[in-house]
Formats: sequence, C-alpha cells, structure tokens
Amino acid sequence: MSGRRELCTPLRTIMTPGPVEVDPRVLRVMSTPVVGQFDPAFTGIMNETMEMLRELFQTKNRWAYPIDGTSRAGIEAVLASVIEPEDDVLIPIYGRFGYLLTEIAERYGANVHMLECEWGTVFDPEDIIREIKKVKPKIVAMVHGETSTGRIHPLKAIGEACRTEDALFIVDAVATIGGCEVKVDEWKIDAAIGGTQKCLSVPSGMAPITYNERVADVIAARKKVERGIATQADRAALSGNRPITSNYFDLSQLEDYWSERRLNHHTEATTMLYALREGVRLVLEEGLETRFERHRHHEAALAAGIKAMGLRLFGDDSCKMPVVTCVEIPGGIDGESVRDMLLAQFGIEIASSFGPLAGKIWRIGTMGYSCRKENVLFVLAGLEAVLLRHNAGIEAGKALQAALDVYENAGRQAAV
Amino acid sequence: MSGRRELCTPLRTIMTPGPVEVDPRVLRVMSTPVVGQFDPAFTGIMNETMEMLRELFQTKNRWAYPIDGTSRAGIEAVLASVIEPEDDVLIPIYGRFGYLLTEIAERYGANVHMLECEWGTVFDPEDIIREIKKVKPKIVAMVHGETSTGRIHPLKAIGEACRTEDALFIVDAVATIGGCEVKVDEWKIDAAIGGTQKCLSVPSGMAPITYNERVADVIAARKKVERGIATQADRAALSGNRPITSNYFDLSQLEDYWSERRLNHHTEATTMLYALREGVRLVLEEGLETRFERHRHHEAALAAGIKAMGLRLFGDDSCKMPVVTCVEIPGGIDGESVRDMLLAQFGIEIASSFGPLAGKIWRIGTMGYSCRKENVLFVLAGLEAVLLRHNAGIEAGKALQAALDVYENAGRQAAV
Repeated sequence: MSGRRELCTPLRTIMTPGPVEVDPRVLRVMSTPVVGQFDPAFTGIMNETMEMLRELFQTKNRWAYPIDGTSRAGIEAVLASVIEPEDDVLIPIYGRFGYLLTEIAERYGANVHMLECEWGTVFDPEDIIREIKKVKPKIVAMVHGETSTGRIHPLKAIGEACRTEDALFIVDAVATIGGCEVKVDEWKIDAAIGGTQKCLSVPSGMAPITYNERVADVIAARKKVERGIATQADRAALSGNRPITSNYFDLSQLEDYWSERRLNHHTEATTMLYALREGVRLVLEEGLETRFERHRHHEAALAAGIKAMGLRLFGDDSCKMPVVTCVEIPGGIDGESVRDMLLAQFGIEIASSFGPLAGKIWRIGTMGYSCRKENVLFVLAGLEAVLLRHNAGIEAGKALQAALDVYENAGRQAAV
Repeated sequence: MSGRRELCTPLRTIMTPGPVEVDPRVLRVMSTPVVGQFDPAFTGIMNETMEMLRELFQTKNRWAYPIDGTSRAGIEAVLASVIEPEDDVLIPIYGRFGYLLTEIAERYGANVHMLECEWGTVFDPEDIIREIKKVKPKIVAMVHGETSTGRIHPLKAIGEACRTEDALFIVDAVATIGGCEVKVDEWKIDAAIGGTQKCLSVPSGMAPITYNERVADVIAARKKVERGIATQADRAALSGNRPITSNYFDLSQLEDYWSERRLNHHTEATTMLYALREGVRLVLEEGLETRFERHRHHEAALAAGIKAMGLRLFGDDSCKMPVVTCVEIPGGIDGESVRDMLLAQFGIEIASSFGPLAGKIWRIGTMGYSCRKENVLFVLAGLEAVLLRHNAGIEAGKALQAALDVYENAGRQAAV
C-alpha cells in the first residue's frame, strides 16, 4: 500500500460567497490540542462562546449555541425542532436558498405557503405582511441575505407583523452574520441561523443559532431524554411529549447539553468550537459597526471597478448585499471558461450561480477575511485580463483606477 | 466591550473512550488554508479521502464518504435514509449506544424490536440469528464496540444471517474503526458508521460512513433533487419518490455531492476533511494490523497494572474491547471524586459511565494517539496515587511494575 503524501493545497484568493479564506488566527487556533467534552476547561469555552454569540446576534436570548454541522444543519435543526406535521409555514422566496427552506419544511410535514418574486429583487414587506394576515401561519421563514441573487431583505417590519400576528419569525442569516447588520432582538426575529464559512471567516462545519423563549416553549413541549440516560423523573415528566423527528437536531436535547445539566448527546466538535470562538472573538474585537463598514467600503471599490470595466451589475441595486456582487456575464462569453482561467492562471475563485441564473451571472464575494483591498484589486485585475483574453468588449485599464480612486478618496475623508 | 483573551487550553492526558488526544500531525494539517468546495484541488482531496476510507473499512463499496457532523450524525444519516415508517428494525442492545439506535429508528417511524442482554456481556450470535428468522426485519442495526460497557460484539455470523434472511445489516463502528478489526465486506456489513474522535484521533465533527449497493438501492428509490437546482430531467424522473425526511442527512443528495455531478448541497467542512484525510492517512501508513496490535499491546499493560493494584475489571473478559478498559469502582469510594482529583492534580481524564453503570465503573480508553506507553504508565500512577489518597484498600507500588513487565517482555519477544 503505497503511502499517500501529506496534504498540500494551493493558496487561493477566494472571492466567492463562501467558503471564503479563513483568518490565519482562526487557522492557528485549530491546531490547539483538544480537551474532553465535559472537562471544565471545555465547558468554560462553551459558555464563553454562547456569550459571544449573543453579542454577534445582538440578542439577550438565553439560547445561542452552535449546531455541529454545516450551515444547512443549523437551518434544519431549527425547522425540525419547531415544525410539526400540518403546521402552516409561509416562505417568501427570492432565490435558491428560499427553496431550501421549503425543501426542509415540506420534509417535516409542513403545509408550505410559498410567495415568490423575481430573482434579483426583494419583496415589498407589505406584500409579505398581507400574506401573513391572510395565511395566519405558525411560522414565517425567510432568508436575510440570498447569495444566489446577491440580495438582502429588510426584516424589521416583517418581524413586527409576525409578533402582532403571533407567527414565529425564523431567519436564515447564514450569509450576513458577521458582515452585515443582524439585529435579532430589535427586528423581533424569533430564531436566527448563522454560518461560519461566510463573513465569519471560519471553516465550514458549524452553524451558530439563537432563539428566544417563544421558540423555546415550542421546543419544550416536544422535549425528550434518551432512554439510555433518562432519569425516572425525566420519564415521568416527558412521556406524553411528541418527540422531534431528528435526534441529532433535537434542540430540546441540545439545550440539556449546552446548559448546566451537561447531558450527554453528541460529542462536541472541539476544534470547530475553538475556530468559531476565535472567529467571533475577532469580529467583536474589530467591532460590529467597523466590520460592517469595512465590508461596505471594499464592496464600493469592487463595484466601481466592475462598472468602470463596462460590465453591468445584476439585480436591484437598492437591495444589493454588501458582501456579494453579482456581475452579468457579457453576451457571447462563456462564464465557466472565464472562471476556470481565473482559477488556473491567477488562483482566484469567483462563483457561478444556480437555476435560472446559472451561466448568466458571476457572483463575487467580499466576505470576512477575503474582504481585503489586495483581494479586491487582484480580482479586478484578473477578471479584466481574462475577459480581454476572451475578446470581451470591455474597457481596459479602467477597473483598478476606479477602485484605487475609491480607496484614495476614503483615505482623504478619513484624514479630514 | 472588553476584548476577550485568545484561546488557551490546558494540555490533558485524555484516557477516555473519546474524544481522545488528536495526533499532532492532524492538528497541524488543520491550520492549512481552505480552498473552495468545488475547486479541483478540493474535489481531488474528496476523492482521495473516499479511496482511503475504503481501505480503512476494508471494503470495495463505491460509497465511502463522511457526513459533516459528529458520529451520531453519521448514524442518523444512514438510518434516516434507509428506514421508512412501519419498517421492522431489530436492534440487539448490550449498552447505552444500542438505545441510541432505537431512539433514532423510532423517531423515523420504525417498528423497533429490541433484544437486550446484561450490560457487560454480549449476545450469543445464535440468539440474534434466531430473532432475525422470527422477526424477518428489514434492518438489523447494532453497535460493534459498546463503549458504555467496554464490550465488542462478534459480527460475522450475524452478517451472514442477515444476507441469508435478506435483512440490511447496519453497524455502528464509531468506537472501533481505526483501533480494532472492522471488515465491512468480509463480515457482510451492508452499512457501517465510523467516528473520528475515537481510535482515528481526529477531532469530533465528522462521521465516515460506507454502504453497499443493497443500501444504495433503497436510497435510490427515495432520491430527490432540490427544487432550486433540479433539472427538468430530475423532476421528471424523481417526482414519484418518497423523500427522505431529513434534507441534511439525505444520502441520495450527498451521493450527488460526492460524485462527479458535484451537485450543490451543504458546503463541505473543509478543515475537518483535511483532518479526516490526515487521520486516515496515518492509520494506513501505520498499517491496520500493526495499529490493532499496538492497541492490544497497551491494553495488556493497562489491564495488568489495574489488576496488580487489586482493582477488578468489569464485564466478560472474552468480549472486552481492546480500546476501553472498565474498572469497578471499589466499595465506599466516590468515583467522581477520584476522577476530579485525577483531572485537577494530574491533568488526566478518565470517564464515568451511564445509566445502570453510572457510579459503578470507570472507563479508561486507550485509543489512537492517546494509546501510548507513557499515557498508560501515567494513568496507572495517577490512579494509584489518587486512590491511596482516598484511602482505598489497594496495593501500592505494584501497578507500574506489572505494566513495565508487559512492556519489557514484549521488548524481549520482539528482539527474538
């Protein structure tokens, strides 16, 4: 059996909507030796992480902890633990990840009411509010930042309406947490799911979630403790409950794991928790507002460069995600050939898109650690060079100047 | 907002049945910068990992890939994708993790038939085979290495019977893969789930699974492609299928992700895959037989030391797991106080147990990277010292001599 060589990966400039480049300080922390899951040193880290997640989500919720799985695991954990068969769930859809919510909700037996609008736009919140009043759903679930179309949805008015109509407002903030404003309490979000591999610049593999007592009450009614470890009292108190279908995603059991009872469930993904803690620590150290401004700043430089090149941005600019810039692929140009050359020659990765937008747009992410000046300038330089080699009718030499103008102007304003 | 300090964890000697100490080469690899999930450099790593997992599981199965979640996620992914409501599932139980199988199977609607034997023993395979013939289940699911009682179950005859009776044989090999023999093909195991945080000495957070075409056919009948990315052909071919309840654990969609179609599902946990690849690479480099022998060797030294101290091993020795040694807590001794002192004074962690064995036994793991001579000698020294301080009636000064005898004798035999 010939020995396999040690891992050796190329160093990429990752300008996609995730997974993005991981902050070197997060990578460093992932070489820290592990400790046992119930070692006081580790439960201390678990508690610290819960505190930091509350700050990140801008919430006072008791429950703020990660699901051990990728972002989609976090979304399923919340939906699986709250949805019961025949529940009415309203899902406004403005891109591919809205369909993921319907996919999961249907599998857990929900009556899904879909509201759709054109990809590249968002809803008028009033349209959603009208539907809430009509359908009277138990749950309204929607995406905050839809990376498939590069749009970000206003949530505050919808949260208010949900509270008034007594619907649970569940928000997929996977692509926005750590890079854009997400105010869980102020926007009356009942449950939110974040992602690690986007603006948090932590490897994929964990999904921070938070939820309030409205959600916790629904979960409590379905609480179960495993037969192998249940006490007499558990069995007496819980025998009548309808259990959550998934054991792994059973938030009632994860609450017992993440709280003082420390009831054995899964074995916490130790190194991934180290990484999440460091990623969130760095976000809080930078400061939420400063970090959001940094993302807007680099987005402005990128967008300026793209437009100066003569390319068109896709979608309604009034609801553009500050961390994802969608570029229309010029007529007659093979978008995948451009992406391949960018990766092969420059080591730069940008993303294609899905469904109706596949082959029509590129998606350039400026998220977390990838969101740096040199990356913005490099992706503009690379894209221009590759498009010229593909004989695209673009303006040569303009993109970097436009981006440098944005950076230099910002420098002058900062100096004033 | 006062800045939080960088992560700083104590260095522990972890002698539990998981999570155990991670090999430094695995920790090092986890600081490797990430690449995109569809970057050819990454899909190459995915393919390499699948190949290496086949060698680890000793199988020719096409399907051998990790679930992004802890070991329990792997177990649920297989059961959720194979079990349909009203399916008869036979589960022989000889400890806490057998109950986990019933827990999950019931949640997905199975008719669970439980067979139980005394904790600390295993079944006579004939008893299980008789039950298979009686119940005629669609699935027989059982644990290979039951860490709650420290027993390992013979599987070959059961696998043969399942094949004859056309039942699917699903095995939880979470605690044995990489430390004990697991011959998936030879023992006619239809699906096996491994763990990373045990004998593989990789952090918790990923669950390698493998399954053959008998299982793949069951999954194929439930195949679904998400609405946001399904092609016309997908919709036509698959509309009649009954989807798997969980989207995250839908093995039909993970097959499309792990095969040439590379259909977007979750975002692969990049750094955890680096760690799994390195962990399995090190196992294969050491050689399976050599590695299993190393585990038996250190177990012998540990057991000799424990007995020389005057302590009793718990359970039927004929089916003792070579990687977990269960020690009866001497009468009048507070097992948790001993564990706490071991951790506080020596930085050594051993484990307590569950349910009926809680407070009755300690469980000492000798798994993967933790399974080293200095760790065995240190845990024996620490346990002896702590027990003496708890006024336990044990033999002082005998344990290390007995263990050293085992090591020295082995040294002489090796030299012959």
